[in-house]
Amino acid sequence: MIVVMKNHAEPAQIEAVVQRVEELGYKVHLSRGEARTIIGVIGADEHLIQNSSFEVMDGVERTMRVMQPYKLASRDFSAASTVIDVNGVQIGGPKIVMMAGPCSVESRSMILEVAHAVKEAGGSVLRGGAFKPRSSPYSFQGLGEEGLKHLAEAREQTGLPIITEVMGSEDIGLVGEYTDIFQVGARNTQNYSLLKALGKQSKPVFLKRGISGTVQELLMSAEYILSGGNMKVMVCERGIRTYETATRNTFDINAIPVLKEQSHLPVIGDPAHGTGMWQLVGAVAKAAVAAGADGLMVEVHPDPARAWSDGAQSLTLERFSRLMQELRQVAQAVGRDL
Amino acid sequence: MIVVMKNHAEPAQIEAVVQRVEELGYKVHLSRGEARTIIGVIGADEHLIQNSSFEVMDGVERTMRVMQPYKLASRDFSAASTVIDVNGVQIGGPKIVMMAGPCSVESRSMILEVAHAVKEAGGSVLRGGAFKPRSSPYSFQGLGEEGLKHLAEAREQTGLPIITEVMGSEDIGLVGEYTDIFQVGARNTQNYSLLKALGKQSKPVFLKRGISGTVQELLMSAEYILSGGNMKVMVCERGIRTYETATRNTFDINAIPVLKEQSHLPVIGDPAHGTGMWQLVGAVAKAAVAAGADGLMVEVHPDPARAWSDGAQSLTLERFSRLMQELRQVAQAVGRDL
Amino acid sequence: MIVVMKNHAEPAQIEAVVQRVEELGYKVHLSRGEARTIIGVIGADEHLIQNSSFEVMDGVERTMRVMQPYKLASRDFSAASTVIDVNGVQIGGPKIVMMAGPCSVESRSMILEVAHAVKEAGGSVLRGGAFKPRSSPYSFQGLGEEGLKHLAEAREQTGLPIITEVMGSEDIGLVGEYTDIFQVGARNTQNYSLLKALGKQSKPVFLKRGISGTVQELLMSAEYILSGGNMKVMVCERGIRTYETATRNTFDINAIPVLKEQSHLPVIGDPAHGTGMWQLVGAVAKAAVAAGADGLMVEVHPDPARAWSDGAQSLTLERFSRLMQELRQVAQAVGRDL
Amino acid sequence: MIVVMKNHAEPAQIEAVVQRVEELGYKVHLSRGEARTIIGVIGADEHLIQNSSFEVMDGVERTMRVMQPYKLASRDFSAASTVIDVNGVQIGGPKIVMMAGPCSVESRSMILEVAHAVKEAGGSVLRGGAFKPRSSPYSFQGLGEEGLKHLAEAREQTGLPIITEVMGSEDIGLVGEYTDIFQVGARNTQNYSLLKALGKQSKPVFLKRGISGTVQELLMSAEYILSGGNMKVMVCERGIRTYETATRNTFDINAIPVLKEQSHLPVIGDPAHGTGMWQLVGAVAKAAVAAGADGLMVEVHPDPARAWSDGAQSLTLERFSRLMQELRQVAQAVGRDL
Repeated sequence: MIVVMKNHAEPAQIEAVVQRVEELGYKVHLSRGEARTIIGVIGADEHLIQNSSFEVMDGVERTMRVMQPYKLASRDFSAASTVIDVNGVQIGGPKIVMMAGPCSVESRSMILEVAHAVKEAGGSVLRGGAFKPRSSPYSFQGLGEEGLKHLAEAREQTGLPIITEVMGSEDIGLVGEYTDIFQVGARNTQNYSLLKALGKQSKPVFLKRGISGTVQELLMSAEYILSGGNMKVMVCERGIRTYETATRNTFDINAIPVLKEQSHLPVIGDPAHGTGMWQLVGAVAKAAVAAGADGLMVEVHPDPARAWSDGAQSLTLERFSRLMQELRQVAQAVGRDL
Repeated sequence: MIVVMKNHAEPAQIEAVVQRVEELGYKVHLSRGEARTIIGVIGADEHLIQNSSFEVMDGVERTMRVMQPYKLASRDFSAASTVIDVNGVQIGGPKIVMMAGPCSVESRSMILEVAHAVKEAGGSVLRGGAFKPRSSPYSFQGLGEEGLKHLAEAREQTGLPIITEVMGSEDIGLVGEYTDIFQVGARNTQNYSLLKALGKQSKPVFLKRGISGTVQELLMSAEYILSGGNMKVMVCERGIRTYETATRNTFDINAIPVLKEQSHLPVIGDPAHGTGMWQLVGAVAKAAVAAGADGLMVEVHPDPARAWSDGAQSLTLERFSRLMQELRQVAQAVGRDL
Repeated sequence: MIVVMKNHAEPAQIEAVVQRVEELGYKVHLSRGEARTIIGVIGADEHLIQNSSFEVMDGVERTMRVMQPYKLASRDFSAASTVIDVNGVQIGGPKIVMMAGPCSVESRSMILEVAHAVKEAGGSVLRGGAFKPRSSPYSFQGLGEEGLKHLAEAREQTGLPIITEVMGSEDIGLVGEYTDIFQVGARNTQNYSLLKALGKQSKPVFLKRGISGTVQELLMSAEYILSGGNMKVMVCERGIRTYETATRNTFDINAIPVLKEQSHLPVIGDPAHGTGMWQLVGAVAKAAVAAGADGLMVEVHPDPARAWSDGAQSLTLERFSRLMQELRQVAQAVGRDL
Repeated sequence: MIVVMKNHAEPAQIEAVVQRVEELGYKVHLSRGEARTIIGVIGADEHLIQNSSFEVMDGVERTMRVMQPYKLASRDFSAASTVIDVNGVQIGGPKIVMMAGPCSVESRSMILEVAHAVKEAGGSVLRGGAFKPRSSPYSFQGLGEEGLKHLAEAREQTGLPIITEVMGSEDIGLVGEYTDIFQVGARNTQNYSLLKALGKQSKPVFLKRGISGTVQELLMSAEYILSGGNMKVMVCERGIRTYETATRNTFDINAIPVLKEQSHLPVIGDPAHGTGMWQLVGAVAKAAVAAGADGLMVEVHPDPARAWSDGAQSLTLERFSRLMQELRQVAQAVGRDL
């Protein structure tokens, strides 16, 4: 961390900061510029320091962090990219992993139909929501355990591993009985009770970026899980909130190479939430693969106009199948497979 | 809801939308413009409709919602402003309510010192965190139940009601044994498990706007609690995330009159998180009162430079006392008391 | 346009709105819902109406626009995609057009070196700034006419058409003597004096999206040029401003398919400004092509560490050449050429 | 400036950065942390350095600026607040200055009517647009010189100085013949041709913050004018663009105390554009005064429903008069006059 002192800060103010740094067990490196004195704070555990308390000291203008505040999620920690094995599906390896399925599990027959179509088109993981975070209390909230059972049956029939959302730490036991991957939604990216509890689990966690979360916050939330002992974390870019209203969210394509550079964790793109419109899903899916994503999650529904949720961003089974073929070309163009 | 058809949509496409509307139990109002046909969807329960599934139908360009999706939180539901009584403190009445205290309860002696200072300066409610949502797993996470006990003792000594954060539905029982008001933090505004559980409680809930939540989402989250049966909800503007980096957040002063117009719930301003810098707290606190806030929450610490969290935005006890005097002038200028 | 009346608006208030609509020469379509009356405003020239003045009438809750406010820029106006010919280079056709060159023309020898390298690697258009919009008055402001002359010489030697920025209407004459394409920068997207003057020119205009401009505003700015009579306009996605600080801007990949759907104008991507970091330019360039861009603009410099501007986002000549090869694979994967 | 080297950067890479710094005439201060080496760049002219070119050097992770990039606009340059005299009206002094008038001058009689009402209610400056930046080329673009003449007549009749917008450097001569203050609109905040030309003028400049401009960019744009020799600059907070759609813009109340702290220039608030809705103008106007603004600009129209532009955010003459009385209370509560 660096502490920038105000123009003409008094010697006693500088001294007070130096003392405080040393008191906390760090070394000081003083640098006197023409206009400003700068105090470098040196130590192995910079990620443990709080800059906030220095900003309040007399004579301090501001502080700047030098190191990223995460550690286990960082490329510095592991130069090799993490590959997560889920029932034989390798996430983070050379093959791009397609996770597909409906927003909500609506019935047994529906999820079975979709599962077979996903399998046939070449998808690797089946998604489907049983517990749904909905912005309105009056909207459909998911089938709950019944939905989990249908997902499990679909896995049995197709061999596809399943991923489904867990909304609170109180549901981890139940959801964990069925799912292969725990999904944490964008509204729960900073639900620390949930993250801590998932850190104690052995099954992989799929962590979405917050609705307006930074890349750094996403990796800090991953750090919560990793530091709890669960090293099987993948992170997901799903669009961020901006002022642009032409689309539901703004898919942050930059985040994909940034995450790949700063972290060793697998990176998944979600073009359905990233755009909110099925017409744009194909273009953005191809873009995500071209930019280096390790996988994609898309929403597929037999009849989107009758979907109980997220119909506008869901692909029909036929469109999904066609997209798979187009994506294969793009994957090969960037030296990957699908 | 209104469904706007594409330029030159075919009659069969229009017909399909009409049928679907009627199938869902709503009435249709057709309006043919020169370039576009518009389909009005009429019914008492517009807040129950999902526009998303119409957007995917052939020939549909987009949909627009006419009514707000919340009901119980709306001024249409209650023209009179809600006043919440907490141990004799009226929140939402003519007197502006000051909630003050440290970010975290750090020790018994510290919270007692602050409580007495808050009381003396004219504050009405004591705040203090015992369970802390921290972006880093390596940061201080709060004293837990021990902190709650210290808060309760401070209440006993001063008579001030207390408010403290609850981070997950699993903690409601424990926190509820001590607190007078449940605080829901900005990272949990859309933690629906928690909101549903608070809807079953009888104690009031203080609900912060999400880090990049809209006013509408804030009221929808309030609706989760209200529709569960707990009508004692107050909402809090605490700054939103924008591109501006000169301050920690951008305090959305507009939201205060907007919330007062659209809803009957009491509105509290949080200039500490809204700015992130104690130097700005006073100016923004006065602005919030001038704009019509029913109360303020500020962070106060005996020695901010040694605070375990949020030191940079905490006022010293003396600064708080001075601010109270300044605020009293502004409150009177807008016909309120403090 | 649609005018939504308040809950329980009085008949006289509704009547006043109806009268005002008719007074302005539009037809009215009244729709009475259970809770709200909605007034449809029907006419061929909806893009000429101002909703702002209705919002101020008694009993009006809000207004909603049904049609886009642009006309000539819209796909409704021209279903066929516009192809712009610049000295034989087709922009908007099947071949993806690469525009490359330094941020600023720094010297004659430098621009000649870059021009030959761009040509050799397969680029189609040479870019280079002679008049530079810099956020600091103390930064290098460009070589002015001298830079234009060097660009013209580079064109002569390589046959590449040139593109350079024009910063104000007073410079159009001078810049127009040299350039093949007028570039309008992100800070001037809504400089209407400049746009109007460019509408009178016969040379093509390359119009960048504003730093936080919407897709709609970009097309409205294009409309200024088109409605002046100059139909040769291409639009450029160059990243938007968001809260994310990991990159200089957030490249809005969604905007590419949205622009292609809503407009017939060619769409160019600018991954240099869209990311601000040369390390990310390759990934985002590939993404833009995969998403359907008709061309790219990238910054190339023989020695980025000594660049007078934008060094951090500039590719070396070697990196540019390598990128061209990688892009060719992606272009072919989406059925284009490069 | 500080250059942060990558973890395990090689000695030769560090050496190369050091050499480059010295080559540019700055002194180096090396600081070796456990994980990172940090290179301080020391010199009186830090605002002249470009960090961008360092970011591209091998082994560099990123750079951080220590000093603000502006100089003449800074409080370090002038501890005393600037007061600008306009025909006897002091802007930046103890009295809060009210600038009011219609968005556009629509006719002679209309501007005269408004001018007298503004005068009577206690306003100090008359605003009115003659050249209008409109997002649509089909909207009313202003009366041009005719409007300027009407404004001048209103000044003659009332004694109020006038302020009107100048949209391009080519109009400075004409506008300067009439106006007392040049207004630069939010879309032109970074129109550097215009700013440079205004730096050569002797009349004061009222500079609006860009639609999504940072506080720092606003002060950098002020710096363009100041460094040209015109020291009479006032800056205006007019709301910024955010994701929130409940209001037209988000009025950044924090910016007012931030600007007052970082700069000596007078700060004006514009609650009309800051909210976009006349219903909110009063609350936000009071908030701006409470937060320390030196003046306000509001839009006033005799019949907002028939305004040619910005009707929705305009006050009637009566509402303006009432607002003046309310503001006076708030001004006095914060030790100012109005």
